[in-house]
Amino acid sequence: MKFGGTSMAGTERIRRVANIVRRHQEAGHEVAVVVSAMAGETDRLVNFCREANPLYDPAEYDVVVASGEQVTAGLLALTLQAMGCKARSWLGWQLPVNTVEAHSKARIEGIDADALVAAMQTGEVAVIPGFQGISQNGRVTTLGRGGSDTSAVAVAAAVKADRCDIYTDVDGVYTTDPRIVVKARKQHYVTYEEMLELASVGAKVLQTRSVGLAMKEGVRVQVLSSFVDDDAPLADTIPGTMIVSDDELARIQKDQGMERQLITGIAHDKNEAKVILTRVPDRPGAVAHIFGPLADAGINVDMIIQNVGRDKGETDVTFTVTSADLVRTQTLLEERQGEIGFNRILTDPKVAKISVVGVGMKSHAGVAAQMFQSLADRGINIQAISTSEIKVSVLIDEDETELAVRVLHTAYGLDAESEAA
Amino acid sequence: MKFGGTSMAGTERIRRVANIVRRHQEAGHEVAVVVSAMAGETDRLVNFCREANPLYDPAEYDVVVASGEQVTAGLLALTLQAMGCKARSWLGWQLPVNTVEAHSKARIEGIDADALVAAMQTGEVAVIPGFQGISQNGRVTTLGRGGSDTSAVAVAAAVKADRCDIYTDVDGVYTTDPRIVVKARKQHYVTYEEMLELASVGAKVLQTRSVGLAMKEGVRVQVLSSFVDDDAPLADTIPGTMIVSDDELARIQKDQGMERQLITGIAHDKNEAKVILTRVPDRPGAVAHIFGPLADAGINVDMIIQNVGRDKGETDVTFTVTSADLVRTQTLLEERQGEIGFNRILTDPKVAKISVVGVGMKSHAGVAAQMFQSLADRGINIQAISTSEIKVSVLIDEDETELAVRVLHTAYGLDAESEAA
Repeated sequence: MKFGGTSMAGTERIRRVANIVRRHQEAGHEVAVVVSAMAGETDRLVNFCREANPLYDPAEYDVVVASGEQVTAGLLALTLQAMGCKARSWLGWQLPVNTVEAHSKARIEGIDADALVAAMQTGEVAVIPGFQGISQNGRVTTLGRGGSDTSAVAVAAAVKADRCDIYTDVDGVYTTDPRIVVKARKQHYVTYEEMLELASVGAKVLQTRSVGLAMKEGVRVQVLSSFVDDDAPLADTIPGTMIVSDDELARIQKDQGMERQLITGIAHDKNEAKVILTRVPDRPGAVAHIFGPLADAGINVDMIIQNVGRDKGETDVTFTVTSADLVRTQTLLEERQGEIGFNRILTDPKVAKISVVGVGMKSHAGVAAQMFQSLADRGINIQAISTSEIKVSVLIDEDETELAVRVLHTAYGLDAESEAA
Repeated sequence: MKFGGTSMAGTERIRRVANIVRRHQEAGHEVAVVVSAMAGETDRLVNFCREANPLYDPAEYDVVVASGEQVTAGLLALTLQAMGCKARSWLGWQLPVNTVEAHSKARIEGIDADALVAAMQTGEVAVIPGFQGISQNGRVTTLGRGGSDTSAVAVAAAVKADRCDIYTDVDGVYTTDPRIVVKARKQHYVTYEEMLELASVGAKVLQTRSVGLAMKEGVRVQVLSSFVDDDAPLADTIPGTMIVSDDELARIQKDQGMERQLITGIAHDKNEAKVILTRVPDRPGAVAHIFGPLADAGINVDMIIQNVGRDKGETDVTFTVTSADLVRTQTLLEERQGEIGFNRILTDPKVAKISVVGVGMKSHAGVAAQMFQSLADRGINIQAISTSEIKVSVLIDEDETELAVRVLHTAYGLDAESEAA
């Protein structure tokens, strides 16, 4: 079981968490719990580091920020004990959770789970701070923001758990954002690949890396809400959304006589910005001059389109970056104007990316065509397109985000009979 | 060097600390720094533990509260790096600082300083969180409140330091509290024994246990202020108070042609409460019935007097405990009234203990007599007396505390020529 920062924010909420844990243990489960820091605490610690040293040493940054999860792990163990549950905390260096040396963005290499399994078998709840590990030379490491989801999946894999329940402030994965479409439906099952695409296009339910790890390790992950009543159904009844392999989903759908859905979800991401370079010389290597330096600076370019301009031998290059990277991108390209040879640089932060995701697309043509037609019918202009095997994304004007999501939700037949609770 | 919670409260103050460290390193010293948590942080963490579980497991309590020093250690390392100093943090489990298993009040058994010394010899400042260690079975331990002083002395002993500088919010040990006596003088030297007596009678400059450890290990300790200007003299010039052995003090005084002082300091402690049990049967074992149960409950009894009562075969027993223990003491004795056989229990929280301390007393009679006479001359009533080889303490009415301290400060010739800064 994993509980996020909102669920761990203060002793009263930790008591609710402990109660959920206790109920599952009483139902006969051996339980390991991974916890985040209290909501806001990691930000507080990161700010201290920035104030101390704007160019901070990530090794010492890790020492500071890993403390937030240490606190909540100890407090959850204490709270469980107060309820009569045997419990103890296991810090990253105690298990240990071995990671690579890459401070502040470490990757878990393996978890030594022998002591953990032995303790769990005695009926003791194991409480593990998420986000933290230990490097080969014995220093504290952290996994990057949102890393506790990854910790939870790694622990689940290490103890060969039946399931990894990720408790959060939403009760599952929806066909789209219920704040935009009141008839959004909660999905009972989603595949790893779908979840990866949804996570990468702005549905912030799980950290992308944790989904990749779950897919690699074959860990069944459930997303569900920690804000439930004391008599709410146990997680065993799958009140949330299960994330499983393609094969398992096919098996479940066959067993239950369910039809395979074409589209699993529609995501939107307003956190994109568009950049247009006009009149770039249309010669080999020109594009490399643009995107090479951006890659070197760690700026991820998402969609790219090349429009041949009016003048022969010149072309306009359009691409998107995250809004946070826009200013750096612009500065970097202006410095290289001579080298690249463009005429003007135009930027537009008021764009949004709308994506439809679904494994069903693999075996069904026409999904993209239907998307373009539905948007065109409502007069929504498409500025760029990108696709993967199970995803189609379009770039549109930010003001049309909600309209586009609603139109597509209806067009793909995702609307529920009644409104979401 | 050790810096307390007030010195570490926030990034701006940590920058002042880093500057002091840097200046000493630049002067050619190899430096290890022990830090406390930010002022108020340990209280915040202790409160979380109490809310989570009033009867908290000290092992998990230690996991939670040790995090405060982890944060400041990382932040000081970052701040030093920002100033161009090489620095790294060494957590309790990393050195390791080995302690006994007694959670929340552990005792240091030894510090493995090899890696530390090697790092310091390369010119790297070692930053060590105080208060924390690791038990034999690999769990986090803490040393009890104020334990960072003890950590500092233990690190100094382990690295065979020339000196342990304890930076605090006062600039040394005074003949008495300068808030009461404006002509209090800062002492340049105090012996371990004197400091132990002063610490135990309410002069809260250093934690008692740290002074005992310094005496045992022969660590020269200097108390000095961290609130100094950037061009203040370095600690090498002894701007604070040095705590040394009796022999070293005798040597220094001989070298400098100084006269040995009779009295080093006058301490007061308002944190005492008086308990009187009337008409206790005057028979063997009666006193054991009173003080045995108190000792079992961990209540320290300080002064004890027995007054033979009016009736034969009965006696009044008077003793003092700390104010915090008064209610528990009363409850515990009332439960045992039949067994002990006293008539009434009277309590008075409005008392204070005044102590005069000085190694010079060993070779000079009449110190106690002078104390009693000086107080009597001003009409201050003495309710109880206790003495050690280098200390005389009296219990008086709390309202007369300031008057008594001033009278004695003058009587023993401690007043400075001019007022303290």
